[in-house]
Amino acid sequence: MRLLGLDPGLRTTGWGVIDVMDNRLRWVADGVVRSQDDAPLAERLAQLYRGLVEVIDLHRPTAAAVEETFVNVNPASTLKLGQARGAVLLAASLQGLAVAEYAPRLVKQSLVGTGRAAKEQVATMVRHLLPGCLARQADATDALAVAICHAHHHSSRARIQAALERAS
Amino acid sequence: MRLLGLDPGLRTTGWGVIDVMDNRLRWVADGVVRSQDDAPLAERLAQLYRGLVEVIDLHRPTAAAVEETFVNVNPASTLKLGQARGAVLLAASLQGLAVAEYAPRLVKQSLVGTGRAAKEQVATMVRHLLPGCLARQADATDALAVAICHAHHHSSRARIQAALERAS
Repeated sequence: MRLLGLDPGLRTTGWGVIDVMDNRLRWVADGVVRSQDDAPLAERLAQLYRGLVEVIDLHRPTAAAVEETFVNVNPASTLKLGQARGAVLLAASLQGLAVAEYAPRLVKQSLVGTGRAAKEQVATMVRHLLPGCLARQADATDALAVAICHAHHHSSRARIQAALERAS
Repeated sequence: MRLLGLDPGLRTTGWGVIDVMDNRLRWVADGVVRSQDDAPLAERLAQLYRGLVEVIDLHRPTAAAVEETFVNVNPASTLKLGQARGAVLLAASLQGLAVAEYAPRLVKQSLVGTGRAAKEQVATMVRHLLPGCLARQADATDALAVAICHAHHHSSRARIQAALERAS
């Protein structure tokens, strides 16, 4: 199973790809796609979209995951983020990927064991769990974190399913 | 010139297509695309996207216009609208259409002559300016209104441009 984690933003969207084999994780690639500050909004969304389609074409993930959005106190920022998020989710969806959503607290819990972990603790665990990963940008690290969270939840579900099948 | 007006919403997105010849407007088509309430968000965005791509393929507009968004007091609604708006803008942009944005006040002013016009006054003017238009749904009427606003502004710009060229 190859997972694509996404951290949407209008200026910079982080992405990270990992492989999951049984309970083992392997880092594949990560990075960010950007949009030009001075381009019209619709064109900026198209830039993010095209960047992500390139990433998906290159790495061919089988599923995607994204953090549920922290709703900003500033409505204009929330709208901006919403628009970027729409483009990012659409990029995955139109390439045939199901997109799972996880609450930020759950992502932290999956990685660090507590929903109140600091950003740096999460980044440290991402590097620990994915030896060799680049994750030079914070957005790419956050994207890898949500991919790892998806891997944990997906494999717990698979284990429960397998146990149920054995029991029946 | 054939214009596509858009009124984005996650559940229902209105669209309207008009032709502009010199100063005359002609209604071509209007309607709404919908997403399924119970589908995952990424799939809902893909439903809106696919619906609009169908409309664009069928009617082949040369430009698009959308209202600048009224930022809702409810941050969750703003986020939802932002995501829908991202998918809608992207649908136009990826089909090669430039997307103009107009403040709601300017749309009202273009149609009714005052930025404080009621929704029904705008709807009445849309029907008056576009004889034969269906616009059975409020979202489609709003989409036609922004298309008309774009036609006015575009043709004023064209007239000014032409006058400048004659004068030079």
